[in-house]
Amino acid sequence: MPAKDLIHDAVKTALESDGWNITDDPLSFEYKDVQVFIDLGAERVIGAERNGEKIAVEIKSFVGQSVIHDFESALGQYNLYHSVLRRLDPNRKLFIAISKVAFDSIFQREGIQTFVEDYQMSVLVVDLGSQEVTQWIPR
Amino acid sequence: MPAKDLIHDAVKTALESDGWNITDDPLSFEYKDVQVFIDLGAERVIGAERNGEKIAVEIKSFVGQSVIHDFESALGQYNLYHSVLRRLDPNRKLFIAISKVAFDSIFQREGIQTFVEDYQMSVLVVDLGSQEVTQWIPR
Repeated sequence: MPAKDLIHDAVKTALESDGWNITDDPLSFEYKDVQVFIDLGAERVIGAERNGEKIAVEIKSFVGQSVIHDFESALGQYNLYHSVLRRLDPNRKLFIAISKVAFDSIFQREGIQTFVEDYQMSVLVVDLGSQEVTQWIPR
Repeated sequence: MPAKDLIHDAVKTALESDGWNITDDPLSFEYKDVQVFIDLGAERVIGAERNGEKIAVEIKSFVGQSVIHDFESALGQYNLYHSVLRRLDPNRKLFIAISKVAFDSIFQREGIQTFVEDYQMSVLVVDLGSQEVTQWIPR
């Protein structure tokens, strides 16, 4: 299975084990004259709900050739969804979901931490082996 | 010539006609343990200077298959450079350079304007035919 699908499935399974219902896969919006949806080649954002609490989860594999290029693309998608959710679905909290391996190797880097803090990214860490959420880092 | 190179060259020519010296192509930074540079396939950011004024220009072709995906990637790169410049080179102003065609068709869309305002993107519009700057929109 390609790495992208592997993490996508693992995140969904991990959320379900945590009691979340996956309500949207992908989670799409129409904002003014822009369709915010996930197309060809892009990685998906899903929607989930638990006891009335709603989240949007941007799943990122970080399997590209360049960490910084992957991070830029993740950040752009995160910021765009953030802008849209704030207006259309303000009670839904946005998270970026990454593997424990990506968290330990990429998100621990000081430079990356600066960007994560600058843009107040909430992070959800999933162990791909056990398919469990190992950390929620809300902002 | 591929569209990416076409706009890259047109923006440089337009800036030079406007009296700017292109000082860095690409403009790279090392921030903490992260190399912010432009690699394989990504579009470049260049540096220019005029009478002691310094700018960073992220050149975007918008020739991908999806406008929203292209915009997300442009936004992510813009925000990352913004974070880095603020710390390492705070007097250098950041712009995104796009063609007049992309400005008229994409950046006039209401939804896109919202995101441009949310992230305070400064825009530089270049006519690819005449290779001239037609608009500076600083924030």
